[in-house]
Amino acid sequence: MTEFNIIEKYFNIKQNKRPDVVLGIGDDAAILECPPGQQLLLTTDTLVENTHFFSYTDPYTIGYRSLAVNLSDLAAMGATPAWALLSLVLSEFNDDWLTNFSAGFFNLLKQYQMNLIGGNLAKGPLSITVQVAGFVSKHQALVRHGAKVGDYIFVTGKIGEAHAELINHQSFLTITPRIKEGIALRTIAHSCIDISDGLLADLTHILEASHVGAHIQLEKIPVSAELSWEAAITGGEDYELCFTVPENKINLINFDCTCIGRIEAKSGLRIFNHEKLISIEKQGWQHFC
Amino acid sequence: MTEFNIIEKYFNIKQNKRPDVVLGIGDDAAILECPPGQQLLLTTDTLVENTHFFSYTDPYTIGYRSLAVNLSDLAAMGATPAWALLSLVLSEFNDDWLTNFSAGFFNLLKQYQMNLIGGNLAKGPLSITVQVAGFVSKHQALVRHGAKVGDYIFVTGKIGEAHAELINHQSFLTITPRIKEGIALRTIAHSCIDISDGLLADLTHILEASHVGAHIQLEKIPVSAELSWEAAITGGEDYELCFTVPENKINLINFDCTCIGRIEAKSGLRIFNHEKLISIEKQGWQHFC
Repeated sequence: MTEFNIIEKYFNIKQNKRPDVVLGIGDDAAILECPPGQQLLLTTDTLVENTHFFSYTDPYTIGYRSLAVNLSDLAAMGATPAWALLSLVLSEFNDDWLTNFSAGFFNLLKQYQMNLIGGNLAKGPLSITVQVAGFVSKHQALVRHGAKVGDYIFVTGKIGEAHAELINHQSFLTITPRIKEGIALRTIAHSCIDISDGLLADLTHILEASHVGAHIQLEKIPVSAELSWEAAITGGEDYELCFTVPENKINLINFDCTCIGRIEAKSGLRIFNHEKLISIEKQGWQHFC
Repeated sequence: MTEFNIIEKYFNIKQNKRPDVVLGIGDDAAILECPPGQQLLLTTDTLVENTHFFSYTDPYTIGYRSLAVNLSDLAAMGATPAWALLSLVLSEFNDDWLTNFSAGFFNLLKQYQMNLIGGNLAKGPLSITVQVAGFVSKHQALVRHGAKVGDYIFVTGKIGEAHAELINHQSFLTITPRIKEGIALRTIAHSCIDISDGLLADLTHILEASHVGAHIQLEKIPVSAELSWEAAITGGEDYELCFTVPENKINLINFDCTCIGRIEAKSGLRIFNHEKLISIEKQGWQHFC
């Protein structure tokens, strides 16, 4: 199999071509139309074998997840996904692996009416880099630096589910990117982030970017039954959203989520277990400690 | 050094912020403004240790080249570069390596008034994936599928210089992406490609995409003095442009380039050495043969 044959067989598959894709896979770059009045969102994320997944991880899950972690970043900005590029480094040609990887990737891509518009294939130790593009109306993108004193702090879903899976050395959950929730928050939330580094680390990013502090109530955080609270809120790879909403807009939230605390003027993050202030050491996922 | 510290120290350096960058590095995605009336071009390319460079290759050159190969793709489309994302997989923290890599990357970035708007850092076997975005006015992008019977075939620069370097196991030349030439060709060329897989392979991409054939004159091809013609035109990694121009627009070309042949109706590529039709076996760079 040559590079071109692999792209043709596994990645240049029939897609429902989006009208904004003038020219997709097959030239030196894709040609695209940006909708007027919208802002473009661009992000990228990489999965590396033995760092983000194991050699025995189901390739369908790897394909799905390589796109899902990127969509989670778009979700955190309130964006509607549009296009993806896929850079695949493969150690060898393996028909079965590529068939399943491709199925996982394209199944998620189709759920959001996205198009794969380009990419790259190279030989080397297995890793997958995906870039995604999405759109949001001007001034409606959700950012980390917008939290205001008095905002209530919310999270979607349960915290620590992915971490529980990692500890048990199982394959990953196929996470659901919170695209729908991000879009719903566009005119409601003051700030938003996805919980990829752990709740405490990511909430701290919001606080630092917004120059505010917060308190949270440990017992209110919805955690996976298998985990201690500490493990749940410091473990990474969750991909739920953490966001802040002013009091007068809380009634506009139209999806399930949990209020876990409130933004305060005093810097720093104070964690209460019922009425008691506690301290937690580990602050989330770090590659190069 | 944590992931955040590395990004802060080596990659979130002071840039002349482009007015189209609403929000750059530091959130879940970059927020960008696309200029009205322009089409967006997106592409990505990966360099992998032991495949595209060696462990002893100067990190400045790796940083420069990881962006340059992507700019070459934008050049082949006639695009003006705007933004880049950088996904870096590092086996370990190395201050000296990162300092030099970053210098090579940003020096080239600045030459084109581009901004680094985001990226990703992960632990694993060394590889670098860069994505670039550029713009071109509607209907002016250069494509592979536009070659017409009677077009003259041109190349920029000398063919096979990069291949000569590879054979000699030296570090790479710091290639100059042909951005200026690509932009100049917007209203002149019928088709264009960058020579990353070797002249014969890449010209064949144009012929197949355009449903035409061609003849070229081997003795007219400007090759590196160190190389045989065969090695020069089948070796990859050149990053010169190969393009086709109709007879009535040849006088509009305002930069150095060499005419090497002509597009014909009969499919296939015929190579002449002076008057003699010859055959050449190897058709360029393939990762998974």
